[in-house]
Amino acid sequence: MINQPALPAAVEFVQCSTVSDVATAIKTMVVRGAPAIGATGAYGMAIAAREREEGANENLIERMKRAKKILDAARPTAVNLSWATQRMLSFAELVVARQIAQTDDAIADLILKEAANLSYEDIQINCRMAQCGANVIPERANILHHCNTGALATVDVGTALGVIYESHYQEKNIHVWVDETRPRLQGARLTAWELQQAGVPYHLICDNASGSLMRAGKIDVVIFGADRVAANGDVVNKIGTYNISVLAKVNNVPVFAVVPTSTIDLTIAKGDDVVIEERDSEEVANVCGKVRIAPEGAPVYNPAFDCTPHEFLTGIITEEGICYPPFHISLAHAKKVAEARIQSMWAHRVDLAMRPKRTARDMLAAEAMQSLS
Amino acid sequence: MINQPALPAAVEFVQCSTVSDVATAIKTMVVRGAPAIGATGAYGMAIAAREREEGANENLIERMKRAKKILDAARPTAVNLSWATQRMLSFAELVVARQIAQTDDAIADLILKEAANLSYEDIQINCRMAQCGANVIPERANILHHCNTGALATVDVGTALGVIYESHYQEKNIHVWVDETRPRLQGARLTAWELQQAGVPYHLICDNASGSLMRAGKIDVVIFGADRVAANGDVVNKIGTYNISVLAKVNNVPVFAVVPTSTIDLTIAKGDDVVIEERDSEEVANVCGKVRIAPEGAPVYNPAFDCTPHEFLTGIITEEGICYPPFHISLAHAKKVAEARIQSMWAHRVDLAMRPKRTARDMLAAEAMQSLS
Repeated sequence: MINQPALPAAVEFVQCSTVSDVATAIKTMVVRGAPAIGATGAYGMAIAAREREEGANENLIERMKRAKKILDAARPTAVNLSWATQRMLSFAELVVARQIAQTDDAIADLILKEAANLSYEDIQINCRMAQCGANVIPERANILHHCNTGALATVDVGTALGVIYESHYQEKNIHVWVDETRPRLQGARLTAWELQQAGVPYHLICDNASGSLMRAGKIDVVIFGADRVAANGDVVNKIGTYNISVLAKVNNVPVFAVVPTSTIDLTIAKGDDVVIEERDSEEVANVCGKVRIAPEGAPVYNPAFDCTPHEFLTGIITEEGICYPPFHISLAHAKKVAEARIQSMWAHRVDLAMRPKRTARDMLAAEAMQSLS
Repeated sequence: MINQPALPAAVEFVQCSTVSDVATAIKTMVVRGAPAIGATGAYGMAIAAREREEGANENLIERMKRAKKILDAARPTAVNLSWATQRMLSFAELVVARQIAQTDDAIADLILKEAANLSYEDIQINCRMAQCGANVIPERANILHHCNTGALATVDVGTALGVIYESHYQEKNIHVWVDETRPRLQGARLTAWELQQAGVPYHLICDNASGSLMRAGKIDVVIFGADRVAANGDVVNKIGTYNISVLAKVNNVPVFAVVPTSTIDLTIAKGDDVVIEERDSEEVANVCGKVRIAPEGAPVYNPAFDCTPHEFLTGIITEEGICYPPFHISLAHAKKVAEARIQSMWAHRVDLAMRPKRTARDMLAAEAMQSLS
């Protein structure tokens, strides 16, 4: 994976070989962004399927269950992580229960393939969200974007940034206000870097400048991703999302969250039920671990996320369409459609896997039969 | 003066010997904070009164007029600067017109003394504001403070931070949320440093965290200083002030600006008429000039201030009392009272200066006369 804390100064890669490597990479934000964490967790589960501990008596499913706990704890707020690890576990249980593969190695191969499928689906989902979302972006729009939601935060394309890329490719002549997103500066470090490479016009601003830009009529739409969307449409996302959503509402600027349905958590009634992760004070007091901006020993409160109540959102863009209020209905519908899609995909894959392998000779024979009939 | 960009890592001092030194110190924010800049400008004018250029034909008043232009341009948004330079110029003109002193050296001495008077008055004014303002701070209040408004931003005590110190000394058991105040991080670098030394309980937060704290009911009152207050009560202050004021209003948290009347500019009808200074992109892209957080060449928009419309303010605390809406009446009244105070102070000083100097012998004679009568 790209080592994101090193960006934009250097493009370095980090390789993970164990479940513990993967958990550490998530915890230290080598990889970040809800969908990217989901895909990373899926590969972590594929590693777990193979990672047999010396002398341990666990079977493959037990190993994966243990790995799921370790991985899920690495970033508790991002629901895509537990969603992806659960999907991998369910898939493994299905493979074992239906006896689709016999040996541990063969099962592990299928699980690795499922992680690749999940990652590939993420790209497809992002493309669908981007196309949906571009419909709400006016020509010559000035767009305020928070945090990083691009290719770095997903497997490719991005969520909110995907909508921006799509709008740019549709030649809408957009311009992006990239807020720096303290404390980890994902806007300054990652989003600016992505937009620069894609040739999308942008300006970097401090988080503090967003309000005055809205008041001056220089922001037409606000978009961001999310780490979790509750059943009622409350959005839990990077700290500062609530601030810009309130400022947007007061200034009559529309606000959209862009999320795959895997980010929607119907088991959570409202955003305030999500436990907000508090992170290390050094993230604030010591910028990029390189420059101390506060006195030694300064006490710091550093919540990583905030909750934006649904009344501050205009809509939530998903791969199944744009959900509008009342969100408890539109989100449940989008989630249902997406889950049906995964079930039918799996049924198709199981069907393919269960079908007796046909040799080249069988196929020639079948063709000959067909030409005769 | 304390070299503020070096704080909190080091306490260094900078000495200014010429008008150009003073202007550079203001421009590079060696000194910052509206009242501190005012006092610095006053001393700059005192330097100008003495700074005779080789071969130049200017008289003292002409030199001071030229210096005023150079100094005022160093930070155009802070009205205290032009207020202080104008006060010094008016004082010099008065001294010359009334022939209070005869030689240039004697006039320059009086002008230097007036700069010291202005500085000393700033401390008195801050103490009065602090006492006024402490009345609106509840027991056990959690106070959100933006930028730095303490001893570093004034001659001593501070404006909004003065109110915090006073509340702390009154044993109200307050706690301060210090926002870091990007891009120049005056909160993290200066306010945290001041509060730590004063023993006032505080936590440092990112600017992004203010909204969620308000939503959680963890902020009881918001206070800040200002660079300029328009006649209608609109406040021009450090970028981000508008953001927290809007968030406070939506969350029913009272908001107070704390300013000396010298910050009130009745010649400006509304805040949007103030030209907002745009500063160098490096302030954002390169934190403290030490760590580059954005890609090379990233375009940056960096407005130093924003305008908070008066409807987002609960009150404006001055040395003449707390101004409440309608602000166009209460501010004009406070300004008038303060100006009458300066005029009577000057009349008293002129009177003292014009009075024939009495020797010890005169005084003994006078006493003898009195004892006889």
